[in-house]
Formats: sequence, structure tokens, C-alpha cells
Amino acid sequence: MDITPPGTKPLGSRRKVCVVIASRANYARIKTALAAIRNHPDLELQVVAGASLVLERFGGAVDVVEADGFKPDAVIRFIIEGENPVTMAKSTGLGLLELPSIFELLQPDIVVTVADRFETIATVIAASYMNIPVAHTQGGEVSGSIDESVRHAITKLAHLHFPATDLSARRILAMGEDPAYVFNVGCPSIDLVAQVDPLTPHDALTPLTAAGAGAPIDPDKPFVLMMQHPVTTEYGQSLDQINETLDAVAALGMQALVFWPNVDAGSEHIAKGIRTFREKGRAHGFHFFRNLPPHEFARLMAHCSVMVGNSSSALREGAFLGTPAVTVGTRQQNRERGANVLEVPNETATIYEAMRRQIAHGRYDRNDIFGDGTAGQKIAQILSLAAPPVQKALAYTAEDLLEADLRGAEFPTASA
Amino acid sequence: MDITPPGTKPLGSRRKVCVVIASRANYARIKTALAAIRNHPDLELQVVAGASLVLERFGGAVDVVEADGFKPDAVIRFIIEGENPVTMAKSTGLGLLELPSIFELLQPDIVVTVADRFETIATVIAASYMNIPVAHTQGGEVSGSIDESVRHAITKLAHLHFPATDLSARRILAMGEDPAYVFNVGCPSIDLVAQVDPLTPHDALTPLTAAGAGAPIDPDKPFVLMMQHPVTTEYGQSLDQINETLDAVAALGMQALVFWPNVDAGSEHIAKGIRTFREKGRAHGFHFFRNLPPHEFARLMAHCSVMVGNSSSALREGAFLGTPAVTVGTRQQNRERGANVLEVPNETATIYEAMRRQIAHGRYDRNDIFGDGTAGQKIAQILSLAAPPVQKALAYTAEDLLEADLRGAEFPTASA
Amino acid sequence: MDITPPGTKPLGSRRKVCVVIASRANYARIKTALAAIRNHPDLELQVVAGASLVLERFGGAVDVVEADGFKPDAVIRFIIEGENPVTMAKSTGLGLLELPSIFELLQPDIVVTVADRFETIATVIAASYMNIPVAHTQGGEVSGSIDESVRHAITKLAHLHFPATDLSARRILAMGEDPAYVFNVGCPSIDLVAQVDPLTPHDALTPLTAAGAGAPIDPDKPFVLMMQHPVTTEYGQSLDQINETLDAVAALGMQALVFWPNVDAGSEHIAKGIRTFREKGRAHGFHFFRNLPPHEFARLMAHCSVMVGNSSSALREGAFLGTPAVTVGTRQQNRERGANVLEVPNETATIYEAMRRQIAHGRYDRNDIFGDGTAGQKIAQILSLAAPPVQKALAYTAEDLLEADLRGAEFPTASA
Amino acid sequence: MDITPPGTKPLGSRRKVCVVIASRANYARIKTALAAIRNHPDLELQVVAGASLVLERFGGAVDVVEADGFKPDAVIRFIIEGENPVTMAKSTGLGLLELPSIFELLQPDIVVTVADRFETIATVIAASYMNIPVAHTQGGEVSGSIDESVRHAITKLAHLHFPATDLSARRILAMGEDPAYVFNVGCPSIDLVAQVDPLTPHDALTPLTAAGAGAPIDPDKPFVLMMQHPVTTEYGQSLDQINETLDAVAALGMQALVFWPNVDAGSEHIAKGIRTFREKGRAHGFHFFRNLPPHEFARLMAHCSVMVGNSSSALREGAFLGTPAVTVGTRQQNRERGANVLEVPNETATIYEAMRRQIAHGRYDRNDIFGDGTAGQKIAQILSLAAPPVQKALAYTAEDLLEADLRGAEFPTASA
Repeated sequence: MDITPPGTKPLGSRRKVCVVIASRANYARIKTALAAIRNHPDLELQVVAGASLVLERFGGAVDVVEADGFKPDAVIRFIIEGENPVTMAKSTGLGLLELPSIFELLQPDIVVTVADRFETIATVIAASYMNIPVAHTQGGEVSGSIDESVRHAITKLAHLHFPATDLSARRILAMGEDPAYVFNVGCPSIDLVAQVDPLTPHDALTPLTAAGAGAPIDPDKPFVLMMQHPVTTEYGQSLDQINETLDAVAALGMQALVFWPNVDAGSEHIAKGIRTFREKGRAHGFHFFRNLPPHEFARLMAHCSVMVGNSSSALREGAFLGTPAVTVGTRQQNRERGANVLEVPNETATIYEAMRRQIAHGRYDRNDIFGDGTAGQKIAQILSLAAPPVQKALAYTAEDLLEADLRGAEFPTASA
Repeated sequence: MDITPPGTKPLGSRRKVCVVIASRANYARIKTALAAIRNHPDLELQVVAGASLVLERFGGAVDVVEADGFKPDAVIRFIIEGENPVTMAKSTGLGLLELPSIFELLQPDIVVTVADRFETIATVIAASYMNIPVAHTQGGEVSGSIDESVRHAITKLAHLHFPATDLSARRILAMGEDPAYVFNVGCPSIDLVAQVDPLTPHDALTPLTAAGAGAPIDPDKPFVLMMQHPVTTEYGQSLDQINETLDAVAALGMQALVFWPNVDAGSEHIAKGIRTFREKGRAHGFHFFRNLPPHEFARLMAHCSVMVGNSSSALREGAFLGTPAVTVGTRQQNRERGANVLEVPNETATIYEAMRRQIAHGRYDRNDIFGDGTAGQKIAQILSLAAPPVQKALAYTAEDLLEADLRGAEFPTASA
Repeated sequence: MDITPPGTKPLGSRRKVCVVIASRANYARIKTALAAIRNHPDLELQVVAGASLVLERFGGAVDVVEADGFKPDAVIRFIIEGENPVTMAKSTGLGLLELPSIFELLQPDIVVTVADRFETIATVIAASYMNIPVAHTQGGEVSGSIDESVRHAITKLAHLHFPATDLSARRILAMGEDPAYVFNVGCPSIDLVAQVDPLTPHDALTPLTAAGAGAPIDPDKPFVLMMQHPVTTEYGQSLDQINETLDAVAALGMQALVFWPNVDAGSEHIAKGIRTFREKGRAHGFHFFRNLPPHEFARLMAHCSVMVGNSSSALREGAFLGTPAVTVGTRQQNRERGANVLEVPNETATIYEAMRRQIAHGRYDRNDIFGDGTAGQKIAQILSLAAPPVQKALAYTAEDLLEADLRGAEFPTASA
Repeated sequence: MDITPPGTKPLGSRRKVCVVIASRANYARIKTALAAIRNHPDLELQVVAGASLVLERFGGAVDVVEADGFKPDAVIRFIIEGENPVTMAKSTGLGLLELPSIFELLQPDIVVTVADRFETIATVIAASYMNIPVAHTQGGEVSGSIDESVRHAITKLAHLHFPATDLSARRILAMGEDPAYVFNVGCPSIDLVAQVDPLTPHDALTPLTAAGAGAPIDPDKPFVLMMQHPVTTEYGQSLDQINETLDAVAALGMQALVFWPNVDAGSEHIAKGIRTFREKGRAHGFHFFRNLPPHEFARLMAHCSVMVGNSSSALREGAFLGTPAVTVGTRQQNRERGANVLEVPNETATIYEAMRRQIAHGRYDRNDIFGDGTAGQKIAQILSLAAPPVQKALAYTAEDLLEADLRGAEFPTASA
């Protein structure tokens, strides 16, 4: 493979690659790439830790990152409290006030940003206005929530694309990105899962009994794994939505490991639902976590009887691990998935029935749709070679554009 | 024409349409739409004025807006001084801290944003995180500078698209936007030009003799019209670039009407070039403006012997008016244009030669590529009817995506 | 009393008084003034709610404010997550970006700000740069923490002073403020306490059994009231400090009503201490609250066996109510207090002993040092009459300054 | 002299002293201290350059700082365009978002901040919330404008005081600061003036003929030196005020060297007045500067026939140099001054008359009221030894406070 585009050359013998990590989810999806970048002879790794990753309220996930040997070169705090649509927009703004100072200091040759959240778009805007090329992972996927729009906007600003699936890569190309800079490498989160020794269920659960809060964990009993985030485009409905799921899980009567939500508009409503559920004394057999290292979380996915909620992990790592999963509501709608996922609306009875079916089915076969465990290595290798121009240009040909109107029904004009 | 999409209905009997105007250029390109929205029985106009529009240093263009009867509902100031890549990114951030508060206050049903600058992306991010649909004008065009990336990112966040040309509309469709919400209405700046009485050259120039600074204007002599902005992706070269153009114009020996640049990374370098040129006493016959009302600017374009610089006006309004134009450098590269534009590199001799050729050629025929003068009316009408869903989704079919790889040479994979 | 200063006249027949409330503590200390301003014929009340007052994580105290009939004219969110010295400073900055927009919108004739926190200094800076006179309550008091410096800096920026004690008024005068604008009105928090029917212990506790979290409350048993905030100037020690107090309270074996801390650098450490205490199963008989309406809190102070921690309530309302109190650490050091307070260091054994002594002593006599229950009325009346000039000037005479050096030992000069 | 307070010890063998410089005026008033800190064996100098110092629009004064060998460790940009009361408050806020990140990075042992502007209060708030002691120069002076309030607020937040006059030191003490940390060192701007070879008038003016803009300078003719800033508390009157002064100077018929104003609310109005004056062709004999190195400015003060405007230089350096000065309006009211200053209202005729009187009088005798030229050395020495506690406390005795009410007429109470 010759990934160096014609007419360009590598940016330098040792490129500074600055990876911005903003949440525990980000970290799990970039960790193996961090290691590969750090170990690559032609690359120098810079880590910027920010947003919920550095907040104790979200489990102080940055400690896990440091413990893995990735000491941040800079820590930035830009989450404005409130977790509603206004503060999400404003936190993006605060990120955009902070990140340029950091980039000015660190002088990276390329910036790497992950997925589709407000920290991600703040990163890509900051870097691209500063004429620093940006590499983006997880572009081209489809989902619900504002993440859907933001993800594709990031693609249009980014210079180098690391989609995680074949279909995602094709969507990025369809959007007009230059094929020379679009690489289907798979998702680094799959690398992580592929490397983890799943242990036995007993051994996977045992170390967790000392962590988290709530009912004691019995490592010898089956369990439900639950992680539900707010859907920002349905702001105001999050409390009802979490209640439907909590009721369904409670009805199962099985022990449940429940994670607190991401920072997003509506998170406080989710948290309120969980707190009320506990305070009403309904959380028998429920154990609560703010954060776990990715490898411990992977073990839970490898052994749970069913995973429920709306985390994309159920679709990504779940495909590789064959985790029986019930995905609730619209947050993952249209995202690629394997056979392991049942998607249901936010209704207790339907969620309950779907969980019962998945528990009865048991584990699914491995599916490599999100990668085969080599994403991190590929990302580092491409970062050491590719030299995308800062000035982007749409890759459409005249022919592409003549065809464009064939896709819709009739081409709308206001004079029609 | 049935522009109401299936399954949706108008948002209310009198929709609040909030237009964010951030520069004199914005204003000229949305003015006729403002008037049409204000006059539409089903719409209520809200105006937010911000960025350089409200700064006296940039000619206090907001006074022109108010004088036209569009009193701002809110004025916001978010430009951080410095005009370099860092402050452009940070100003975007500051805009994102200000705009959500304004939208929370004004509670618009839809937000309208213009073109491709940092104020524009701040507007579309603020509104879309707040679940307010956004209409965007001038999407789908191509150009150089960071504006190119930003424009397409805005398209991926916006819900309703008002491109100005057929080709732009096709690019928006190719990027996966829903054909039901893409309308080639033409550019409102053409409406303005179409409405303006160009007067005689003498009568067009006479009222300007009292404005601006520098050498006196002789309304009976031919003149060059010059407007050159920095190219952000070539930050650091702006001083050289303006000097090449100033030298070429000075060599012509014709009287010149010169405009100060936009607020952008590099503007201060352009301004320094102009100041130095004046202070060296080389500005014989040069007259300088910070701002003019759009109709007065249109008259200048209708009568100049040649227009030089890198303003997109030369391509847009210039096509309709048949203005002989010399476009310098990369800022407009790849943008659609008619026969009236010669594009040349930043070199005095080449610029000079091209200006001589255009002066010799004289005026060109009218070209409707950027619209026929009805854009404002069409925009208001569509805003009163269209109801795009807040949750966006890519409009690609499976077939589109299978074709995606046919566009590039070979589909790159890291395993190849 | 003629409080209109010579040479000035009232600002208008109906002055707009804008009160900025930023926390539950703020609210309790201004509530009766809000009511008096609202009811005053010459005043128009504007309420701005911000900071922790509007966060659900801090008990959504704004709902209490609204339920009392004070609907905010504006809600602003400017707390940056992190609760460390860096985010406190930055949150001040974010407040300073938000407040001017609000003041520009509301156009108040005078702004009222409470006490000594980062929201308070943001308010007084914003208003005074905008040439809006500022009235300040609780100036002139002394304490530990950064609040000490910030409080006096606010005094030097404020135009009208409402200290709560005679000694505080004297300190404000000593700092050079104009005697014409310094009024010892007492603290509105005392008004509130004076108005509250304390009920019986049983009736005061009963409605609380449904609120909060933790062990059930037995309304017929005595209880400890605990409220401990971080000391910002001892950042890093908060976790140890809360543990000392928790251990002392646990040793008492009495039921305890515990409040979560304010938003401040170190709050997260306090919260962590409390969470860990609970998760270790040590919180027998402990009940936890995020927020209570001021009148319910006053009842708790009227009936608790002892109040422990470092809240200034123990000193202020406690004096009036005769609450036996143990004040821990440096946070209240040097603040005026009555006989009801024992001040001890952060050591379990000492705290424990002091609580035992206070429980044995029982309730103290009422002390009016912080006011007699008429502060709110006085504040409203003065706000309707006083017209301080925007341009401040130190009130020192030449004689004052000649005496200045007599205070210290020898006047230091670098040449000595 | 034993300036180490009892019970404390020096902070370390080599203290990091971080000086924040935010304008050309700041620089002139701290330059000799910078040199002395840099040369002191126990100190390590850190320089943060920000605000107008780093803007090309204000003459790129940072280049002068670098040329003097003080390369900034960090450059921050936090001036929001607009120059009105709203943007001054907001710029303070933006400074407070930027400075904590810088202090976190540089980890200074002590921060030094100069004078009384919005950058100064942003600096002292940022540092003091972060528990970093702050040294403040020029405290205790009195003047008009918002600077008056801000200066004293800064004193209440600062830990170590370097007033420039005896009277200023006494005011700081009167405000309750600890005498152990108040040092009348004089003003470093006087050091600078004392070091400068004033040259002959001809030799002082000659190098300036190539700088600035406007009419050519004749180095053999007498000249007026003019520098007028806006008065923020009289925002809206700046244009009228500058016009009065420009008219008076024009009436003199003498060549005039005029400086553009500081960044402040109203600066744009001053600039507009100057621009209009030029564009009307009235600026015969007027030469305009954006910035000069301090030593060149000192030479102008040493040789001008009269200095006019409202710069505090006329009072400070002017006293030492004996510059005949006319100070206009309220900006310097109440500030200490020598015999060289005539203070007049903003009226052309009165300004003109006063300038005539001063020109007739000629130069005054040297007055050491603002120092004898050793301030920088003293500041560095004290910074190397003093160890003020982070926790401040008012230094008043009970006796001081009992006397407090003797100052005003009658002690006001709301019950009177």
C-alpha cells in the first residue's frame, strides 16, 4: 500500500501527534492507537485530557489513562455545569477558547480526535482554523441524537479519516472526501476487546465487588449490564426513558450492573431517575459504577446475560464479543450492527420481553464488522506516512454532480 | 410546488425566524430575504447583529442595517482582537458562549445563517445543539481558504438549504442532504443588484466623494475597484499578497477605490500593507473605504473599469452585472463564475496584465448563474412552509454507497 | 433619617433593582429584602439566578425561589466543572462574560449582590465597569478562606453598603468608604429566622422524613445538624477535614442531618468523603440533604442539639436562635459571633469534646448582633432613596492618613 | 531592614516571579523591575504578555519588550473588540479564563501585577483564587475613572504592596493592609526616566521622523506632546472631549506629537475624533504615534514645550522631569502631583490658555515625589525576601475601629 498521496511527502521524521481525549468512552476507542503511536519510531505522542475525563464526578477516568502510562501533556476543563442544550453549546464554546492555547503551546503536526461529541467538534474547529491537519476516528457512522449531525460536520472539517467499518468509509467518500485519505481501519475498541482475557465470569466479577456502590455483587450469579445515556434531540424525555428501562430491569429480578450516564444535555435527568430509584428502595440487586477501565468493562460484556440501554458499545464491541443486547430508543437507530442487537422503543414491557429473548438466546458468534483487532497499529502507521493538504477540496467529479439529482424524487426548486 | 415534506406540517401560524448577521458581506447577501421575511404574513423577523457588523472599526455597518429598518433584537460582541488563527478559533468559541443565551431569550422557531465564516459555524452549532432548525444560505459552493471546510461542515449541521446555484445544490445533495430541503433559490445579493438603479458613473461616484479617506474622487474619471481579504490557510503571506496587488493597481495610474479587509486571520497584515503604502506617499489617486451600503457598492461594480482582489462579489454580483474582474490568488479557486472573471496568481506583473486585458474588453453580458433577482422572496416563502425534522439523517441509499468506491481510483484499505 | 446624600437626588420614581442570587446561601441572606423590594412602591424588582442556585446537582434551589414568587428575569449558568482553584477563577471569568449581557438587557438602575463569593465579585465588576451602581450586603465581616480578600475587594468596588453588624460597618468605614453610603441594617437572614414559627421539634422534623436520602429520620429523637464547606485556601486538605468531622459525629451516636457542600474548590473532596463514609456503611443514623428551603433550615437550627461544621449560619442565625454550635477549622476565624459558638481545630477528638459540651449546655439566649429582624425592610427603603455617585473616591482626610503609620510598628521602607 | 515577617521564611532559594504585562503603559512602569528581577540571583523571571501589548493595532508594543530581552513565556489575547463598558467587563472575564491556565503551566511562586486596569484585576483574581501570592505596584493612588475603584479592590486582593509615593503607602495602610507588606519603593517609571540620556531636542526628535504618520517632524522646532485616553465613567463623552483638546492644540499652531489612546471603553470614540480631524485636513503639523519605546517617550517629555491630555505620565515622570503639563478633565483628579501640572476642564479655551501659561513658564524643578530612580532594585530585593501569607487578614485594631465613626459626620444607621 502506498498511502503517501502523490505530490506530498511526510511532514517530518518524527511527527508530533496530539490526541485529544475527552471521556471514558473516547479513551476506550483510542487506547490501542495511543500505544501504537507512542511505540512508533517516527511519531511522538502528545495527550490532551479534557471534559468529563478529568472530572471526579465521572469517576476520574483520567487516572486510568495515567495508570496506563499516558500522562497528559495538558489537562483542560471546559464543561459548564447544567447538562442541558444551552450548556452543551456553551461548553463547545469554552472548549474552543481553551484548545487553541494548548495547540499553540504543543505545536502538534497533526491532531487526532475521536467520534462525535461537542469536545470533538471543538477540537476539529480549533485545529483546522489553526491550519493543523486533523485525523478523525469513527466518522461515517449513522445514529440518532445531535451526534449524527456533528459527526458528519467533523468529517467535512477533518483531513484524514479512520472509519471503523466498510459502510462508514463509503459514506465518507460519498460525502466528497478524498479517497486518498479515507482508511477503513476498524475500531480500536475492538483491538482492546480482542486483547482482553475475558477470564471466567467469577474472576471477572470478583475484583469489582470492592468498587462502585449499591447492593453487593455476587460473582457467581448471572447479571444484566445496563448503560443508558440521554438522547439530546429528545431533551426533556430522559427521565421517563430511564424509568422505563429501570422498571424493565427490576422486573427481571436478576442482579444488575448499572453505569451512570455521559455528560450531555439530559444527563442530570438520567441521574435523577437512578437516584430516585435507589432512594425509593427499589434497587435490590443493583450495583452502580461511575467508571471502569476498558478491559474490565470488556469482561462484563463478555459475560453478561444481556446488555441493555443505548450505548454504542453493544453494537461495536458487542458484535465482536457476541453479547446479547437490547438497544432502547433512537440513540443508535440506523447504526450498523450485527445479529446480536435487538432494537426496541422506550417501553418497559417491550424492553423486558426483548431482554428475556436475548437471555434465552445466549451469546452470538463473533462478527468482525467493526474490525479485527488491528486498528491501533494501522492508525499509527498511516499517521506516520500520510500528509493530507491543509486546504481541503470536495472530491466530486462533474459526473457525480450530474447524477446527484437522480437520487431524490424530483429536484426541488422554489419556482416549480 | 409542494414544499411541505410528507408527514410534517408548518411549525405554527407565525413562525419566528431569527437571522444572524455578522458582517457587511453577510448583510448584502441576506438583505432582500430580511425584507421578504418581515413582510410575510406568516413570519416574524428577529435580527441578531454581531461580530464585525457592530464594530466601528469596520465602518459600523450595523447603522446601515438599522437605517434600512432592521433594528437588531440583540447585539453581540465576540471578536477577540488579534486576527490570527488562534483568535479566529477563539472568537468562534466566544460566539458559542454568547449565541445560546440569545436563542434562549428569543426562542426562535428557525435560525437563518449566511455563508461560511466563524460566526456562521458558531450559529449553526449553537442552534443545532439547542434543537432549533437552521436554514443556511450559500451552501455547496467551493472556494479556497478555511471557509471551504467550514461551509460544508455547516451544511452537515443545517436543516434547510438555500444554495445560490444549480451546481451548489447538486453538491449539497451529493453530500447526503435530503432533497426535500434543498432549494436552489439564487443569491439574495443578486436581488439587490437587480433592484439598484446603477445611475450614471458620474451620479454613482458623486455621493462617495464625501465618504472615506485619501485622495479626492473625480466622478468623471474611470476607476479601479479593489477589495482583497486575507487567505487564512496562507496566514503569514497576506502582507506580501496585498503588496503585489497594490503595486499592480498603482502601476495602472488610474484612480482606485479600495476597501479595507474583513476580520480574519491576516486582516491586520492586509491593513498594515495598506497603511504603509499610504504612509510612503504612494497612494496617489487612491481612496479608501471601510464600508458602503450594498446599493452604493453595486453601483461601483456596475461602473468600474475593472474590479481586482479576491472578493466573491466579483464572481457573484459581477456575473449579473458583467463586471470585468481580476481575481487574485487562491481564495476563490474552484468557485463557480461566469466569463467576466480572470483568475491570476499573486504577482504584480500578471495582475497588471490581466487588469489591462479586462479594461480593454469592457463590460460582459449578464449571466444568471447566481440567480435572477427573486431569491429573497423564495427564501421567505419556503421558510413559511418547510418543516425539516430536527433529527437529521443521511439521504444515501444502499446503491449510492456501493457506488461510492467507483469515484476514487482504488478504495484504500490499510491492509492493502 | 435623611439618607439621600447632599447634592444628589433619587434616580427615578421607580428604580429597577436587579438582585443577583447565586446559591441557596445567597437566597437565605437576601430573601426578605427581595420581598420588601417587590412590595415597595418606588422599586421594581429584577432577579437574576445563576451559579449553583440553578443546578439540579445542588438541589435545584431555584425552584424554591420561584415557589416563593420570585421568578427569575434571567437564568445564567457559569460554573465550570472541576471545583478546584483553577475552575473557581475561570468560573468567575465565565460569569463576567455572561453578566454584562444580562445587565445590558435588563438595564437596572442599581444592582444588589450578596456576600463574598466568586459570583459576587463577578457581579460587582460587571456592573461597575458598566457604570451601574452596586449595593453590597454582608461587607466588612472577617473570616478565613479566599472569601476574606474577595469580600473586601467587593467593598472597594461597591457604591452602597449594607453591613450586618456594627463592627462590620466600622471596618467598611475604616477602609475609606463614604459614611453617607454605609448602613448597618442587620442581616436579612435574621429576618427570616425571626419570622419562622419554629414549631415543635417533632413537627419541624416530620416533613423532612420524605426528603433527602440515607437513614430514616426519627422526629422524636435529638439530632446533630452538620454543614461543612471546603476552605479554598487550604485546598487539598478538604477530604481529611470532612473525615475528622464525620468521625466525631459518628462517635456521638446521635442521629445526624448532613448537608452537601457549596460549589467551591474542594467541594468534590468533601463530597467524596461523604460518599465513601456512606459506602463503607458507617452512616448509621445519618440523613443527607442537598438543599432545604430557608425556613425549614431555620427550624432545624432552632431544635438541633448541636450544629457542627463551618457554615457561617452557626454564627449569624445561630446567635439569634441561640443554637449551640461547634465551628471547625479556619473558615470562620475572626468572624463576629456570640457566646453560642465554640471554635475548634479540625481534629476528631476536639470536635467530639466540644459537641459534648454544647449538648450539655443546651440553647443560648438570643443575641441581636446580626440584626433584629428588620433588615429587608431597611434595605428596600434605602434602595429607594440613596443615590451614590458612580465615581467613587476614598473618604480619607489628610489627618487619617498621617495617622496611618501609627498603626504598624515602624513604617517599612526598602532603604531602611 | 528585616522584611521577612516573623514566623515565615523565604519561599525557596530561587523564586519564580511571574510578571503580567498588558499594555505599553504597564511596561514603562515595570521595566526596571523586570531587569532587576532577571539579574537577581535568587529570582527567576517569568513574563506573561497580553491584552493591548500584543496587538499590532496598538503598535505591537510586545516587540519592544522582546527587543529589550524579555521574551514572554506566554502570550495571551483576551481583548474583545468593541471598547465599550460591556466589552471591558467581558474582556476581564476572558482574561480570567486565560490566566489560570497560564499560571497552572508556569507555576509561579509569586505574581506581579501593575496598576489598575481590567487586566490587572483579572490577574489578581486569577492568582489569588489559585493561592498564589500577588505583588501589586502603584496601589494607593487616587484618580478618577473606574480605575479608582479597581485599584483599591486590587489592593484588597494583593499580598505585597509596592506603592510609588508616601501618601499612597499611607492610604494602603489605612485600608487595613498589613504594614509588614507595604513598601514605598517609588515608581519604576522614574528609574527609567532617570537612566535615559535626554539628548538634545534635535537628537531626541530626529530618530522619530521615520516613525508614526502624518505631517513631517521638524526636529529643530518646539512641539506639544499630546496623549488623551477615554474616561470610562464618562463613556459617551469621549468624542467631544478629544475634540476640545484637538481644537486647543490646533489653535496653538505649534507642531504636535499625538498618541493614539489605550484600549478602554471609549477608545474608539477618541480614535474617531482623531481620524475625523485628520480627514478634514486640520492636522497641519500633527504627527501621530501608536507606540514608542519608553526611553524615547521620556525624551519627548524632557523636551516638549508642554504636555497635554490626561495621561498619568504627566504627573509621574513629569514631576521628575519638570515637564510643563496641562491635565484635562477628571481622569487624574485627586492624584498626587507636583507643581508642574495645571488641571483644567474639557474646554478648548481653558485648555488653550493653560498651555500658553505652561509654555511661558518653561520647565520645572525636579520633584522626587514618585521616586528617586531606585524602585526596580528595591522591588526585586523585596520579592526575594518577603513571604506574605496567602490568607489575608485586616490589620485593624479594635481601637482603629472605634475611631472609624469619628471620621464621618454622624454614623448612619437605618434606625436613626
